[in-house]
Amino acid sequence: MDERETLSIPESVHDILNDKPTAFLSTLRPDGRISVNPVAVMFDGTWLRVSTTKDRRKYRNLIHDPRVAICVPHRNNPNRYVEVRGRAEIRDDGDRSFIDSIAQAYMGVERYPFDRPGDERVVIRIIAEQVSAPAIPLADDPPARPD
Amino acid sequence: MDERETLSIPESVHDILNDKPTAFLSTLRPDGRISVNPVAVMFDGTWLRVSTTKDRRKYRNLIHDPRVAICVPHRNNPNRYVEVRGRAEIRDDGDRSFIDSIAQAYMGVERYPFDRPGDERVVIRIIAEQVSAPAIPLADDPPARPD
Repeated sequence: MDERETLSIPESVHDILNDKPTAFLSTLRPDGRISVNPVAVMFDGTWLRVSTTKDRRKYRNLIHDPRVAICVPHRNNPNRYVEVRGRAEIRDDGDRSFIDSIAQAYMGVERYPFDRPGDERVVIRIIAEQVSAPAIPLADDPPARPD
Repeated sequence: MDERETLSIPESVHDILNDKPTAFLSTLRPDGRISVNPVAVMFDGTWLRVSTTKDRRKYRNLIHDPRVAICVPHRNNPNRYVEVRGRAEIRDDGDRSFIDSIAQAYMGVERYPFDRPGDERVVIRIIAEQVSAPAIPLADDPPARPD
């Protein structure tokens, strides 16, 4: 078991995390620029986890610098969201059980169908050092949508 | 007029930018951590611009370090998105014309109603140094939603 500490995610936002959200994962590139991309994210009650492959930029970025942030908005109301800042810990997804669990949750299929032969899957586990979860929808930032 | 160069945003993603998107803006905090938050974003055909106030964290972050990235997903299909990496340039929104233009676009009202007396609005203009706009929806990252 992992001994590192992670902050807990407030229950007030568990509904956001359990509703197959599209999250936005931010990493630092070796050239010093920030990157931010959409990802599927899984939440097991403690950890936020994201899948990638070893040939992807976000893997290379995180090997170079483990700092990470993720913003998970409510599926239908971006005024509600949780932001987690911290570090990434990367493990092999050798039996592909994690990427398949994403396929089951997000796509309703047993096996993730889009990888190419030889793609090496890994699990990005996010060690939460800071958690922002506005309990009350902010009037500002962003403005509420009219619909 | 500003003399700095900015990369152009491909026309293939202008529809994403012109549909009142919720974007995800990433900045660096003085403590070294990355931050990423939802924002409204305006596109005038050349520049991406975001509003904030001087008491907000993202303003303080950008004054400290102008590096920025923004990911703008399609409103209904997060497999389509544009990511811009670069630097932020900040100007005062002294007459509040920019925040009011956001209120008009996103909320259908003339004046942005949520600021408190004394809030100082600024315009964050993003100087694009790198633009990623996958023209073909990626099979991966994130998996397509079933609905």
